[in-house]
Amino acid sequence: MNFASDNAAGIAPPILDAIRQANDGFALGYGDDALTRRVEHLLCDLFEHDVAALMVATGTAANSLAIAQLAPPWGAVLCHREAHIMTSECGAPEFFGGGLKLVGLPGDDGRITTDVLKAALEGGEWGGPHHVSPAVLSLTQATEAGTIYRPDQVGRLAEIARRHDMAVQMDGARFANAIARLGVSPAEATWKAGVDVLALGATKGGAMAAEAVIFFDPARAAAMGERRKRAGHLMSKHRFVAAQFDAFLTDGLWLTLARHANQMADQLAQKLSGIGFPPVWPVEANLVFAVLPQEVHKRLTAAGASYYEMHRDTAPSAKFGRPDDVLVRLVTSFSTRQEDIERFVAVARA
Amino acid sequence: MNFASDNAAGIAPPILDAIRQANDGFALGYGDDALTRRVEHLLCDLFEHDVAALMVATGTAANSLAIAQLAPPWGAVLCHREAHIMTSECGAPEFFGGGLKLVGLPGDDGRITTDVLKAALEGGEWGGPHHVSPAVLSLTQATEAGTIYRPDQVGRLAEIARRHDMAVQMDGARFANAIARLGVSPAEATWKAGVDVLALGATKGGAMAAEAVIFFDPARAAAMGERRKRAGHLMSKHRFVAAQFDAFLTDGLWLTLARHANQMADQLAQKLSGIGFPPVWPVEANLVFAVLPQEVHKRLTAAGASYYEMHRDTAPSAKFGRPDDVLVRLVTSFSTRQEDIERFVAVARA
Amino acid sequence: MNFASDNAAGIAPPILDAIRQANDGFALGYGDDALTRRVEHLLCDLFEHDVAALMVATGTAANSLAIAQLAPPWGAVLCHREAHIMTSECGAPEFFGGGLKLVGLPGDDGRITTDVLKAALEGGEWGGPHHVSPAVLSLTQATEAGTIYRPDQVGRLAEIARRHDMAVQMDGARFANAIARLGVSPAEATWKAGVDVLALGATKGGAMAAEAVIFFDPARAAAMGERRKRAGHLMSKHRFVAAQFDAFLTDGLWLTLARHANQMADQLAQKLSGIGFPPVWPVEANLVFAVLPQEVHKRLTAAGASYYEMHRDTAPSAKFGRPDDVLVRLVTSFSTRQEDIERFVAVARA
Amino acid sequence: MNFASDNAAGIAPPILDAIRQANDGFALGYGDDALTRRVEHLLCDLFEHDVAALMVATGTAANSLAIAQLAPPWGAVLCHREAHIMTSECGAPEFFGGGLKLVGLPGDDGRITTDVLKAALEGGEWGGPHHVSPAVLSLTQATEAGTIYRPDQVGRLAEIARRHDMAVQMDGARFANAIARLGVSPAEATWKAGVDVLALGATKGGAMAAEAVIFFDPARAAAMGERRKRAGHLMSKHRFVAAQFDAFLTDGLWLTLARHANQMADQLAQKLSGIGFPPVWPVEANLVFAVLPQEVHKRLTAAGASYYEMHRDTAPSAKFGRPDDVLVRLVTSFSTRQEDIERFVAVARA
Repeated sequence: MNFASDNAAGIAPPILDAIRQANDGFALGYGDDALTRRVEHLLCDLFEHDVAALMVATGTAANSLAIAQLAPPWGAVLCHREAHIMTSECGAPEFFGGGLKLVGLPGDDGRITTDVLKAALEGGEWGGPHHVSPAVLSLTQATEAGTIYRPDQVGRLAEIARRHDMAVQMDGARFANAIARLGVSPAEATWKAGVDVLALGATKGGAMAAEAVIFFDPARAAAMGERRKRAGHLMSKHRFVAAQFDAFLTDGLWLTLARHANQMADQLAQKLSGIGFPPVWPVEANLVFAVLPQEVHKRLTAAGASYYEMHRDTAPSAKFGRPDDVLVRLVTSFSTRQEDIERFVAVARA
Repeated sequence: MNFASDNAAGIAPPILDAIRQANDGFALGYGDDALTRRVEHLLCDLFEHDVAALMVATGTAANSLAIAQLAPPWGAVLCHREAHIMTSECGAPEFFGGGLKLVGLPGDDGRITTDVLKAALEGGEWGGPHHVSPAVLSLTQATEAGTIYRPDQVGRLAEIARRHDMAVQMDGARFANAIARLGVSPAEATWKAGVDVLALGATKGGAMAAEAVIFFDPARAAAMGERRKRAGHLMSKHRFVAAQFDAFLTDGLWLTLARHANQMADQLAQKLSGIGFPPVWPVEANLVFAVLPQEVHKRLTAAGASYYEMHRDTAPSAKFGRPDDVLVRLVTSFSTRQEDIERFVAVARA
Repeated sequence: MNFASDNAAGIAPPILDAIRQANDGFALGYGDDALTRRVEHLLCDLFEHDVAALMVATGTAANSLAIAQLAPPWGAVLCHREAHIMTSECGAPEFFGGGLKLVGLPGDDGRITTDVLKAALEGGEWGGPHHVSPAVLSLTQATEAGTIYRPDQVGRLAEIARRHDMAVQMDGARFANAIARLGVSPAEATWKAGVDVLALGATKGGAMAAEAVIFFDPARAAAMGERRKRAGHLMSKHRFVAAQFDAFLTDGLWLTLARHANQMADQLAQKLSGIGFPPVWPVEANLVFAVLPQEVHKRLTAAGASYYEMHRDTAPSAKFGRPDDVLVRLVTSFSTRQEDIERFVAVARA
Repeated sequence: MNFASDNAAGIAPPILDAIRQANDGFALGYGDDALTRRVEHLLCDLFEHDVAALMVATGTAANSLAIAQLAPPWGAVLCHREAHIMTSECGAPEFFGGGLKLVGLPGDDGRITTDVLKAALEGGEWGGPHHVSPAVLSLTQATEAGTIYRPDQVGRLAEIARRHDMAVQMDGARFANAIARLGVSPAEATWKAGVDVLALGATKGGAMAAEAVIFFDPARAAAMGERRKRAGHLMSKHRFVAAQFDAFLTDGLWLTLARHANQMADQLAQKLSGIGFPPVWPVEANLVFAVLPQEVHKRLTAAGASYYEMHRDTAPSAKFGRPDDVLVRLVTSFSTRQEDIERFVAVARA
């Protein structure tokens, strides 16, 4: 009953197998290898666009490298106030970006609305030399609340960003979950909607450690190689990160894995609703948030269930019946089994 | 009728005179001179404590150097959301601090309350490795709203900060105005109340360009010399910044100048109240905020009055009668003349 | 005939197998797992000392994180002028270290001598506020020239560093090769000789992507977790980097693999000497440098041999017979086969 | 007998007078004032070119801001190994430049030669992703050795830099001394010879604290306002730094003052030669280097002479008769009096 995080899951077998297969003979290091070339082509095909792609081992790196490339040190990055880059990367974007500033925007279900974005851009003091300048709009897809942006929502936000000369970056640690749900093409969900750079995650989706920074305008990636190298994020045996992406993207594995995770989340939400614990936010990806009475929480923990208890402040709209009710986050993954869900719900109900 | 800023004023004559007197013969550069030594002693006397003091030319530098010394790059600096370091230094603290994070706290009249501080420290996610760690509480004295903290208020805030292993820094760009009003000693307003480092401003108070970073625990200033130098803030002809402080601090000039500024603000507020424009916040230093009807604003501007129009968001508590009412900030200084106030009010009334 | 680099080799089978075995069920991310704990204990045992160890995926990160921890932004890092951190990490130590300064020292065979170190420390201008302060001595073990420092050499250099209040960091990307040759314990080669922090490489030695920063004084690692996280180097599925180290360090695999690489280098050097191309420097690890006539170089390249041509400046002592002679670097690894060496030499001789 | 530095001199009377005159009434802060506009026009006229100019208070800031604007964090700045930015700014360019790398080039008399520059650019490993990329050539005019570059020398160096896509920055802390000697126009000595950005110093030449960063291609100064502000180098009462430049540049004061300093240096050098202590390098600006016997050095010091003793390494070509001979640097300024020179030489001779 492990719902702690999708990174508590292991490696999807086809991806581990790809690492094994790549371990054949010599290959030049640092990305000068055939597998890396192949992944670059796969990504161009997948996104139906010429892209510049750089692979790294962590999502923190992918997002921070992207943001640092798009914003000057005196730039502001507007993102949801619960965005991972804002709360959970120990200031990585600020470090990579030479001291840029993240500005957290409110939004009930993890999403930024056009009204909030407009108010922030029109209501504050922006621009040099005294104030930082809006430089990047960062959208998390799927969001920290487990919701997703539809392409038209991305498009409207991107349109506002564009009018303020901002670039649009997407934190796609759970991009696969979003695409699996949306039923639109990766292109429609990104560049066609105005996204400039995507941090595409594979790790949470089943890889060991593989993320890619994808520039839909390759010219915008100038000197990204240097930026990655000096951040220590150019892998020497690069073929093995490429191998992971190769397997992830081949034959739609990424969507197959994400679909399973999403379905497990759906089931979990449905069954919890059935016993009186409806999800706090719509379950659109692989995250379920619920309010549990203290005794249920204790029973689950005692039974070995693993999940995170959240600060109440992260869900202003959640309804707490009693002062000691707890807000919990349950994350499913490609490796979540139906029996775990059933057992979890059974313990919660008992 | 210039109420744009206290930095629109010039140099107080005794301070300019001190520069002239210091211009006698040779003196070693970079602070190895007698005047610099003298100012260091004056500051120890003034604060009734052994201090380490470093002089610089701008308040941005003084605050940013202090903060960078007190917080690691993964540290959080909690300050009022309207604090100058948050809104108006183009990310300087982040630059000096290697990408640290400023966290803006709400508070109606420019002041942080103990409740707000406690809520921020206890309600959020803090600490490594995923979250930044609270490192510095930065208080602005007088605040951007023209209010001041009383020593007991500082003390209570500092006590909370101390319990969370945070240092307390004070942005004292208008420290003189606060002391002139409070009628307490500089010691009582700072280290006795728990302040670790003060950025003491002289520029707004009448100097040409002179600020000092004052560490009440000299050991805490280790390597500040290097930090200042590599930021380009070690003046070569250092005696002239020292000369300004020498005059500023001698015979209570700093308080005489501040008292005048405060009194002018009091008069301005009183007279504006008399014609229906009461101050938005208590006038405790040399800033007066008021809501003016559009036609009054236009008439004043046409008559040559100089002041800043503020974003309404900066004063949530201000009452706007009509949609086009404007929130204005009026700043007095050592050089504000009574006749300017009278003329301003006359034009406003007319 | 691939002698391009030890990172052109793949993953040693026992290490790949360990990744496979670790892929069993769930494990908390970010290092909160049993395998990570196990590796930490293994490292304490191996070094016969309580250590703080942090695992990362690249050597650039391991070295740069270590250096940034030991030196302030105004610190100088003294290293060999051909050290990898100086020449080949695109400024990573400067980035991680907030703009610190690397100072390259001369030395014919990749090694810094006590005379050179003393001259640098006593002959230059050091110290604040105008000059950077010597903070770290960084030694590469084995060196870029394929030579190694004996413990007494390290000890004498560390003694000088200590007298100047400098910490001693060791870039151990090829530490295994050095230990395999020296026949001393890891403790003797490091903390017993005065090394404060070791960047211990496993990647070049046979892992996929695994390096560790090892502090022999755990107190010195304070806040390293935050430093690693905000640099994007905390792996989410951390158990898989731990698994690599687990296999690497178990049953002396690391030394077995390194010994093979060293032996292959010995054979290569011996056979090349036999046909008139003696090594430029003593072959003490897994690198062989030789001067080859242009036609031999061309023949080898045509036959598919892979290796790097070096700038002549990197080997001032090498003897070039003809203007178009080339200086080449040949690197062996755990996976180098004897037949490749024989074929290489046969082609070179032909 | 103060020959310690030109920053040990005070403020030239006309410049102090200009500060006094500027102290009349109110003026908007942060450079939005008439005097600042006036200086910008003066600089365009002086350089016979449209320029973007930003004034700051220190040379460290002027150089570092210029370099940070011209080089990316992964850029290399090539400069003389004795350049002030390399040796005496405690790593300021690295700090402002986000961790860029300074590369010191040899050169006997403070000057870089075309041969040395070519060798550095063609002989090393440059370029991404592994190596830093040459980005800026920084020339010091006059040099730390008191010599100057002639326009054709600058032109040939700039031509090489241009071929490697590097910008050319000039540290002109003593630009006035160079121009006073060269007898060419400021334009000929800068942009006509290929200089992109000049850090023009007034402080050493007689101002209190006034330097300017001058971009000969104004487009290249984009966002310099933000860069300056966040470094704490935008003066609030900006009119007073402008006033200094206004006086400095009006009626050729800058050249009058520099000419006097140069003449004093000439006399000092001539008289010292006459008593057996010829200058180590040609005296072309206001610096005289000489080798003095220990007893002469002691006698001068006892008599109150003030000057710096240099490390012997800084002058490889200097001839030392005895082991305890000292290399001294004597700096003249606008305020050096003939009688001081005569007295100095008399004591030295005695």
